[in-house]
Amino acid sequence: MILCDIGNSRMHFFDGRSVTHLSYEEGLKRYADEAVGYICVNEDIKNLIEKSLPSWRDVSNRSLLKSDYKGLGIDRVALSLGLCDGVVIDAGSAITVDIMEEGVHLGGFIWPGISSLKEAYTSISSKLSVEIDSYIQFQELPKDTKSAVSFATLGSIKRVVESFALKKRVVVTGGDASYIAPLFEDAKIDELLIFKGMEKMIKEERC
Amino acid sequence: MILCDIGNSRMHFFDGRSVTHLSYEEGLKRYADEAVGYICVNEDIKNLIEKSLPSWRDVSNRSLLKSDYKGLGIDRVALSLGLCDGVVIDAGSAITVDIMEEGVHLGGFIWPGISSLKEAYTSISSKLSVEIDSYIQFQELPKDTKSAVSFATLGSIKRVVESFALKKRVVVTGGDASYIAPLFEDAKIDELLIFKGMEKMIKEERC
Repeated sequence: MILCDIGNSRMHFFDGRSVTHLSYEEGLKRYADEAVGYICVNEDIKNLIEKSLPSWRDVSNRSLLKSDYKGLGIDRVALSLGLCDGVVIDAGSAITVDIMEEGVHLGGFIWPGISSLKEAYTSISSKLSVEIDSYIQFQELPKDTKSAVSFATLGSIKRVVESFALKKRVVVTGGDASYIAPLFEDAKIDELLIFKGMEKMIKEERC
Repeated sequence: MILCDIGNSRMHFFDGRSVTHLSYEEGLKRYADEAVGYICVNEDIKNLIEKSLPSWRDVSNRSLLKSDYKGLGIDRVALSLGLCDGVVIDAGSAITVDIMEEGVHLGGFIWPGISSLKEAYTSISSKLSVEIDSYIQFQELPKDTKSAVSFATLGSIKRVVESFALKKRVVVTGGDASYIAPLFEDAKIDELLIFKGMEKMIKEERC
């Protein structure tokens, strides 16, 4: 069975070997007749799949995760199940952070994703339309616009996460993982984490 | 002379007693024939004023502020001159932070403003369209969407500022000051700070 994580803007397929990132349209077309196990955060797409793709199956299983967080997205449930202990940061359309300790989900944070933040800055003033520097240094106070924006954007995530999880291992996933991983010493990028969680859902395995 | 701070979305007039916030259109119309000393971060409006309002005078004076920050907005120059020592946070279209120490500008940060951030969340998913809770507690990990968004938004500013200026006095200004002031113990809201800086510009007073 092919696994598919359906996010707020794209679909991510895993065939057991590699991950393919596609638009909704491309993904639904290319895998229409395959056996696909999916999770989905977009209600419209979910309804469309339920109506039109009989070989696709929603593998969501929330009950496996110990958590008293209300309204945790199914993608975050899968990531947390995939991790079991540590901090998982998913840097996609949104940047979500979830903190797991010995199989228990303790809570998390949500920032707008890097591209949304860039759009937000640009919409305020063309002077704030700068590239975010993923290698910004956090020891010094910013002394130009690019540094002031980059520090605010990335330093926020660094400082807030560190205030709760200074010594935990950090695993980063999502399309903008390369912006986030350099913020944390020894952070690991793992594009497969969500699929590990989905496999647990299918096998009904807890952490 | 009436003072006017022209921001990225509105005009703020100070007549020596009270502050009036107006749209560009309203401001230019109402004060067209008055003697107005202004600073302006919007080039288009600045050009328009120079061409059409002979009684208005740009009072910008950057040379009074000791700073090696490149591209510091003239509003931030005025706020820093108004403060001289401590942290000034201007929560408007953007949220700017500037850190002053004994009359020297050390650097700063720029976040998108509260309304831009809200728009950014909403554009990602309707599930993220939540009110930001200005009284969010920072001791506990968020366990619902509203807390996760509020903590990420406001906790970012708190943690980043505190990492550089833990014991400095904090002065907050701008339309969203009420979101930011509760983040810092003993923070003071001062709507007049920018005008104090502008008065220094006019009198050519340094910190």
